[in-house]
Amino acid sequence: MALTKGNSIAYLKKGLRGNKMLDFEKSDGLVPAIVQDYKTGEILMLAYMNEEAWNRTLETGEAHYWSRSREQLWHKGGTSGHIQKIKEIRIDCDNDAILLKVEQVGGAACHTGYRSCFHKRLEGDGNVSICGEKIFDPKKVYGK
Amino acid sequence: MALTKGNSIAYLKKGLRGNKMLDFEKSDGLVPAIVQDYKTGEILMLAYMNEEAWNRTLETGEAHYWSRSREQLWHKGGTSGHIQKIKEIRIDCDNDAILLKVEQVGGAACHTGYRSCFHKRLEGDGNVSICGEKIFDPKKVYGK
Repeated sequence: MALTKGNSIAYLKKGLRGNKMLDFEKSDGLVPAIVQDYKTGEILMLAYMNEEAWNRTLETGEAHYWSRSREQLWHKGGTSGHIQKIKEIRIDCDNDAILLKVEQVGGAACHTGYRSCFHKRLEGDGNVSICGEKIFDPKKVYGK
Repeated sequence: MALTKGNSIAYLKKGLRGNKMLDFEKSDGLVPAIVQDYKTGEILMLAYMNEEAWNRTLETGEAHYWSRSREQLWHKGGTSGHIQKIKEIRIDCDNDAILLKVEQVGGAACHTGYRSCFHKRLEGDGNVSICGEKIFDPKKVYGK
């Protein structure tokens, strides 16, 4: 947990801006980010960062992504309050993927209310079952 | 571990072929696959699957990917012997990303010899440190 300074890693911003550390060109300007619960190791979601999202994440200590569907910068939890506080950042061997270890405020990363976006399990009989815990009711959080 | 049948999930192939379960169109025919050690929860790598790789994975119970650099089907471990036996498959809420929980034969997923591809950690001082365990010498395994 060398990155933590309280709940922020804002001090990381020095010298780490832009694409100096990551290869954003490989996938049309986007780098996939695996998001893992820093305590339990559970995978919460996969999202994408462009340079701006990466910089904002380093500056604020809170996860920012690029929303491919909305085509805009996405401060995770900006609507629901379920932000992700960055505890550790790992970069892969090719500098084209990152792993964020986070504290998931509110306990759920998925917009469906489940703790993890990966709550569908492929079973041996060919069916898909729902596993994992539903933490909140999306209707109450998003009002729709 | 509902998927395991010995070390294979070959029986999963029935009815699960093609793009019936996954949205391959969203990212030019490729779906990102997070690879996690099924025992420790450690993230080992991120790779991509096209339909053929997905089908081969289901048929054989061993991870197959699409190599973006070599532009060919990639049976992980086909050269090094370090295959990944599938223990569980999760699909995300949008059907455009998967999580594989695997047994990593040989103990290392990264071509550099490290257990995980995510062996570079961003430190608070702005430097990148190497963490994680080096399991094998790539020169001995790949002969280069």
